[in-house]
Amino acid sequence: MVIVLKQSTPPDELEQLMYKLRSLGFDINLSQGENYTVLGLIGDTTRINENQIKANPYVDRVLRVQHPFKRVSRMFHPEDTIIDINGHKIGGGHLLMIAGPCAVESRDQLLTIAEAVKQAGAHLLRGGAFKPRTSPYSFQGLGEKGLQLLQEVKEITGMPIVTECVSDETVDLVAEYADIIQIGARNMQNFSLLKKVGQTNKVILLKRGLSATIEEFLMAAEYILAEGNDRVILCERGIRTYETYTRNTLDISAIVAIKELSHLPIICDPSHAAGKWEMVIPLAKAAVAAGADGLIVEVHHQPELALSDGAQSLKPDKYRQLVEAVKQIAAISSVTI
Amino acid sequence: MVIVLKQSTPPDELEQLMYKLRSLGFDINLSQGENYTVLGLIGDTTRINENQIKANPYVDRVLRVQHPFKRVSRMFHPEDTIIDINGHKIGGGHLLMIAGPCAVESRDQLLTIAEAVKQAGAHLLRGGAFKPRTSPYSFQGLGEKGLQLLQEVKEITGMPIVTECVSDETVDLVAEYADIIQIGARNMQNFSLLKKVGQTNKVILLKRGLSATIEEFLMAAEYILAEGNDRVILCERGIRTYETYTRNTLDISAIVAIKELSHLPIICDPSHAAGKWEMVIPLAKAAVAAGADGLIVEVHHQPELALSDGAQSLKPDKYRQLVEAVKQIAAISSVTI
Amino acid sequence: MVIVLKQSTPPDELEQLMYKLRSLGFDINLSQGENYTVLGLIGDTTRINENQIKANPYVDRVLRVQHPFKRVSRMFHPEDTIIDINGHKIGGGHLLMIAGPCAVESRDQLLTIAEAVKQAGAHLLRGGAFKPRTSPYSFQGLGEKGLQLLQEVKEITGMPIVTECVSDETVDLVAEYADIIQIGARNMQNFSLLKKVGQTNKVILLKRGLSATIEEFLMAAEYILAEGNDRVILCERGIRTYETYTRNTLDISAIVAIKELSHLPIICDPSHAAGKWEMVIPLAKAAVAAGADGLIVEVHHQPELALSDGAQSLKPDKYRQLVEAVKQIAAISSVTI
Amino acid sequence: MVIVLKQSTPPDELEQLMYKLRSLGFDINLSQGENYTVLGLIGDTTRINENQIKANPYVDRVLRVQHPFKRVSRMFHPEDTIIDINGHKIGGGHLLMIAGPCAVESRDQLLTIAEAVKQAGAHLLRGGAFKPRTSPYSFQGLGEKGLQLLQEVKEITGMPIVTECVSDETVDLVAEYADIIQIGARNMQNFSLLKKVGQTNKVILLKRGLSATIEEFLMAAEYILAEGNDRVILCERGIRTYETYTRNTLDISAIVAIKELSHLPIICDPSHAAGKWEMVIPLAKAAVAAGADGLIVEVHHQPELALSDGAQSLKPDKYRQLVEAVKQIAAISSVTI
Repeated sequence: MVIVLKQSTPPDELEQLMYKLRSLGFDINLSQGENYTVLGLIGDTTRINENQIKANPYVDRVLRVQHPFKRVSRMFHPEDTIIDINGHKIGGGHLLMIAGPCAVESRDQLLTIAEAVKQAGAHLLRGGAFKPRTSPYSFQGLGEKGLQLLQEVKEITGMPIVTECVSDETVDLVAEYADIIQIGARNMQNFSLLKKVGQTNKVILLKRGLSATIEEFLMAAEYILAEGNDRVILCERGIRTYETYTRNTLDISAIVAIKELSHLPIICDPSHAAGKWEMVIPLAKAAVAAGADGLIVEVHHQPELALSDGAQSLKPDKYRQLVEAVKQIAAISSVTI
Repeated sequence: MVIVLKQSTPPDELEQLMYKLRSLGFDINLSQGENYTVLGLIGDTTRINENQIKANPYVDRVLRVQHPFKRVSRMFHPEDTIIDINGHKIGGGHLLMIAGPCAVESRDQLLTIAEAVKQAGAHLLRGGAFKPRTSPYSFQGLGEKGLQLLQEVKEITGMPIVTECVSDETVDLVAEYADIIQIGARNMQNFSLLKKVGQTNKVILLKRGLSATIEEFLMAAEYILAEGNDRVILCERGIRTYETYTRNTLDISAIVAIKELSHLPIICDPSHAAGKWEMVIPLAKAAVAAGADGLIVEVHHQPELALSDGAQSLKPDKYRQLVEAVKQIAAISSVTI
Repeated sequence: MVIVLKQSTPPDELEQLMYKLRSLGFDINLSQGENYTVLGLIGDTTRINENQIKANPYVDRVLRVQHPFKRVSRMFHPEDTIIDINGHKIGGGHLLMIAGPCAVESRDQLLTIAEAVKQAGAHLLRGGAFKPRTSPYSFQGLGEKGLQLLQEVKEITGMPIVTECVSDETVDLVAEYADIIQIGARNMQNFSLLKKVGQTNKVILLKRGLSATIEEFLMAAEYILAEGNDRVILCERGIRTYETYTRNTLDISAIVAIKELSHLPIICDPSHAAGKWEMVIPLAKAAVAAGADGLIVEVHHQPELALSDGAQSLKPDKYRQLVEAVKQIAAISSVTI
Repeated sequence: MVIVLKQSTPPDELEQLMYKLRSLGFDINLSQGENYTVLGLIGDTTRINENQIKANPYVDRVLRVQHPFKRVSRMFHPEDTIIDINGHKIGGGHLLMIAGPCAVESRDQLLTIAEAVKQAGAHLLRGGAFKPRTSPYSFQGLGEKGLQLLQEVKEITGMPIVTECVSDETVDLVAEYADIIQIGARNMQNFSLLKKVGQTNKVILLKRGLSATIEEFLMAAEYILAEGNDRVILCERGIRTYETYTRNTLDISAIVAIKELSHLPIICDPSHAAGKWEMVIPLAKAAVAAGADGLIVEVHHQPELALSDGAQSLKPDKYRQLVEAVKQIAAISSVTI
């Protein structure tokens, strides 16, 4: 951590600040230039409260040298984390394909789609039983009934289940049914929920918040690992920018950056990024070409009747095309799919 | 709602779509131009699923005419909502001043600050017992002990209490102590939490999410009102933009816009917007000049020792200056403080 | 164009507005709902001044149905535009590879890099003689001397030249040397410059502005076409978002969107998007997988000595890897490289 | 400047980098932590090329301690710059009021508006003769004829003139007529134009770019000062964010920040920020309350007939209200208007 002091800092204030920092266990490297005095802190600054230091009226700025995350950092865990979900692997060169409807609507709907995506090459089935919706008047999901339908279809198809948990109070319930518990973008900084799922023994699929920085995203994962659960899959699903032509802006560079900064697998959700089914296939190809460890894609056999997010759902035949295209790109990169 | 169809839409697809929309109870106004066919829907489109319509491959775009919110809308409730908190009013020309530390740290700290801000002119005391923090390694608040200290200080000073609730499971606990329950920016779309606080009989202070649109912000308030609780105070606290000089960008226009769109009172949090105490006073003045119904400001007597957000905390004497400045601006606008 | 009027609009104001719009040559489709009155305009609204209409105090909102661009629109020109630059084609399934240093520094530097990228598979040579720099104290380019060096190296290597023009006054000079005149992101809405290059007979490479919407980007191209020059190549080079880990956020979806909206070829500049050489190869692969018609990449044999943007420059051997990877992806999509 | 090296940096690479930096004239302060090696550079880093350093594969990050601007910096020029335009002062406690139509349309239009705003309290008259417009099909201004009308109206009313220059080639022409040359947001980084106006003896009104950081904004001003012209007025006019309810997001904090970082006067353009006349008065009040040194406001007597930006133009009587409100706020802050 580097602390830049104002030109006008009186010598005794400088003394006092250095004394305080040393008493917190840091070595200090002092540089005095003409216009600025700079303190370099040596030691573990992960736990330091930057804002306490900035509150000193003589402090101009504080620059972090060390990233604030540890358990998720590749620096302390250089090899890729590989996660196995009922025999399907992700990370370290294994590509995981997740597909299914946005929301579970009925047994028929779910089974039809599950069988179609399985045949097309999907490994896991997604489907929401609890849906976070912008409007209180929109369909909020079937709740526990939806979880039961997921289980039923899992038994028939053999596909492990990915489903979202939206509240502390339903973590145990969702954990009974899900193979992977999804934390949605809007809950990425619902720290209470992060802690709770960190205490389960389930794989967690953590989606990046709408306007979360890469650092905040990794810090949210750090919450889960800090509770003892290190089986976390990250998911880039588009960020909010000024551009309105797409629903969100897929931050393809984040996939590249996160593979560099962290050992956790990272997948891409091209459906939510685009908001339009026409764009899903090219974005899926781009994500795999950039190095994503998997894809989670919305598929619906009758998108114009879907109770949620029909606009971004692929029909099963389009999903088959997507899998074929992605396989060819994976082959180039010697990734197993 | 206006539905724009593609040039290439076959007549029978158009027929079918119109049939479906009519069967949902809408009147349709059809315009056929050279390059586009446009359908205007007449009727209450609040409950319509826009994404179902976009899923139709012949639909180019869907434009909303009607705002999706109802209960919070000034259209259906033209006069300002005035809320009374233990004798302190907000809305309709009443300015409410809330101040206190970011986090409750100790009885001494809280009482010292409470007495200072009360003397300076604050009506309500803020203080966090449960703190949502980006890092799992940062101070997470005193929890219930913090709530008890708030109550103790309320009894001594007579100041009603504003404190944050961060999880479903603690809503009842927080409601026992708080006069106003705060929902933080990160939980603005924690719909499960919104529903729960909508079922309490407490005033809710809802902060705008980091990258929430004005419409999403009002839809989040709609969740609370839809549960039967119409005593909601909105709070603009800065949005995330590309600018990094300030912690967030205070969206001063949002205050103006929300007063136009909604009857609910809206206050401003200049402390979180700026992230730097030096900027708090000018931003507070600007917010009141723009028409804000109140201010929530972080104050700490020893910011350089604060366990949370010291950088943006004013010292008590600066807060006194702020209140004086704001009173003068309020006087010009004939607002009661 | 759809005009939404306020609830309170008096009938005679409605009459007057409709009269005025009819006199401008539009047919009007009137829908009156309970809370809004909506006017649908039928006719060519490309030239209409939206802001004049919004100035009417009874107008609540104006929604555009028709895109404001024409000459660049795929609606009026369904087939891909293919541009030939001295035998190298771009568009309609032809991938164009442009590479070279950020700035021309010396004959040796330029020739070394040109030969290296040519051998690696680049078709055209890029190099800046006039450099737009954030700081007046940074290297501003060699000017005309740089253009002469580009020509010399073109004669030796046979590679056509792409170079930037930054001012009206140097358009003629740059046009003497360049095969493709580049308009940089910062000048995307320098309309005076757009008009001038629209009057040349050179191919124009137009980069997307830092925070330009897709619509504004296409409108900037429309300026060039409106002057009679329809040989325009668009370039996505990253947009400004709140994320600071990368220099800009590569908007991969914009490539997909623009191919849908326009017939013009669109290439990607992964170097400026990333700002870090380590990320250039994965982003380049992603762009081609998403359908980009070409790549413009910064290459320098000694990036740590480069006078401009060394951080994002690939060394020649890395560029060779990039070309190999891109060729494999192009092969899958049956694109000619 | 602080250079953070990767954990893996070999000792001889560290030696070599330090040697190179010392040879550029810097003193170096070396800190070696467990995971990072950090170099602190002491000396004037304004002219250093950050990207050259980042190009070194062992460099992880580069953090700037010193701001890259000098002439505009308050650090080297602590007192406010006061500029006198024909007897009207701005800066150092003097508030300057500029008003007029977006575009000059006719003698009658201009004179009517000029007389109205003068009577209401405006000091200077604004009016565009050259208009940068998103669409090539929109009204582009009257050109030199517009300048002549401005002069004529200046002679009648005695009001000095503010008008925009959009191209290098018209700088001399505009300088003949204007008292203040405006550089628009889209040209904020048209460095060629900045240099040219830096060579005139006119006051320059520099608008912040749509997505310019405060640092880039000040660096653009630095270009003008570096050419010898130190009479620059800065103008905050809203930035681009994800929020679409307003045309731009007025960055009220930027006014506060710039007054701290620079000695140059800064004014606010609430008209462009809002894009809606209804919001102009509250934003104007907010800007002055936050410390702006002036306001530039669009006024039109018949906004619904305006050829440009009618939606954001105030009618003269509303402008009078604005001036009255602003005077009251100025009085509180002991600012001269």
